[in-house]
Amino acid sequence: MAEMRLSVKHTGDGHHITCENEAGGKMAFDGGDGAWAPTPMQHLLAAAGACALMDVEVILRKKRLAFRDLRVECVGQREKRGEVNPFTSMRLVFRVEGDVPAKAFEDAVRLSVEKYCSVGATIEKGVPIAHEAHVGA
Amino acid sequence: MAEMRLSVKHTGDGHHITCENEAGGKMAFDGGDGAWAPTPMQHLLAAAGACALMDVEVILRKKRLAFRDLRVECVGQREKRGEVNPFTSMRLVFRVEGDVPAKAFEDAVRLSVEKYCSVGATIEKGVPIAHEAHVGA
Repeated sequence: MAEMRLSVKHTGDGHHITCENEAGGKMAFDGGDGAWAPTPMQHLLAAAGACALMDVEVILRKKRLAFRDLRVECVGQREKRGEVNPFTSMRLVFRVEGDVPAKAFEDAVRLSVEKYCSVGATIEKGVPIAHEAHVGA
Repeated sequence: MAEMRLSVKHTGDGHHITCENEAGGKMAFDGGDGAWAPTPMQHLLAAAGACALMDVEVILRKKRLAFRDLRVECVGQREKRGEVNPFTSMRLVFRVEGDVPAKAFEDAVRLSVEKYCSVGATIEKGVPIAHEAHVGA
């Protein structure tokens, strides 16, 4: 059992909220009309993609594959339920360019999403996460 | 049904990952030793707190209460399960200063966490979210 702690603060300016981790890394949140910083729901969707993408990157490096433009397009479906508008499903579409065999990329993506991603393991009971893997521009 | 889309990109530099929303708002992710930017799990925990905090702020303003230093301490418990290390529970400890009756703050926090927060509504099946509300320094 381990514990993570973060202090999330309203800045006093509109809906703007900030959070800084122990290393000084910052997160900014906003919402409503004219908002610039990402919303909490955007952080959630991006975190699901980033978590798996980080593991994909580690696997490709371990396999010594020369890759570039590694990315994931995250698509979240939302549905209004009373006052809330939660995600009901997510689709993570992974893309990479370079000298990466399609099978190796598919394996890396599947392992990352299904086995290594702690964000996915936390939220998948509430929101199923599908994935695709494509090599090429 | 509505759709949210985000493109999450590996920068080519270590584990560093970035994402920009349609308004140009940026999120940075990192992981591993020497990481500076927040991890995906930090984004997830902070998003749960920020989502509810934004609704608390809206309710306090509607009630015309003079508040300052509105914040939420987010505590996530994690447990190793095979290769993943997901959150098993979260506790959100809300604090505010100013001319805010304790009962009004507790009501605002409870409504926000239990009724209005879309991040919570998405993830609560996977990770139960407890809350506390305190007025004063």
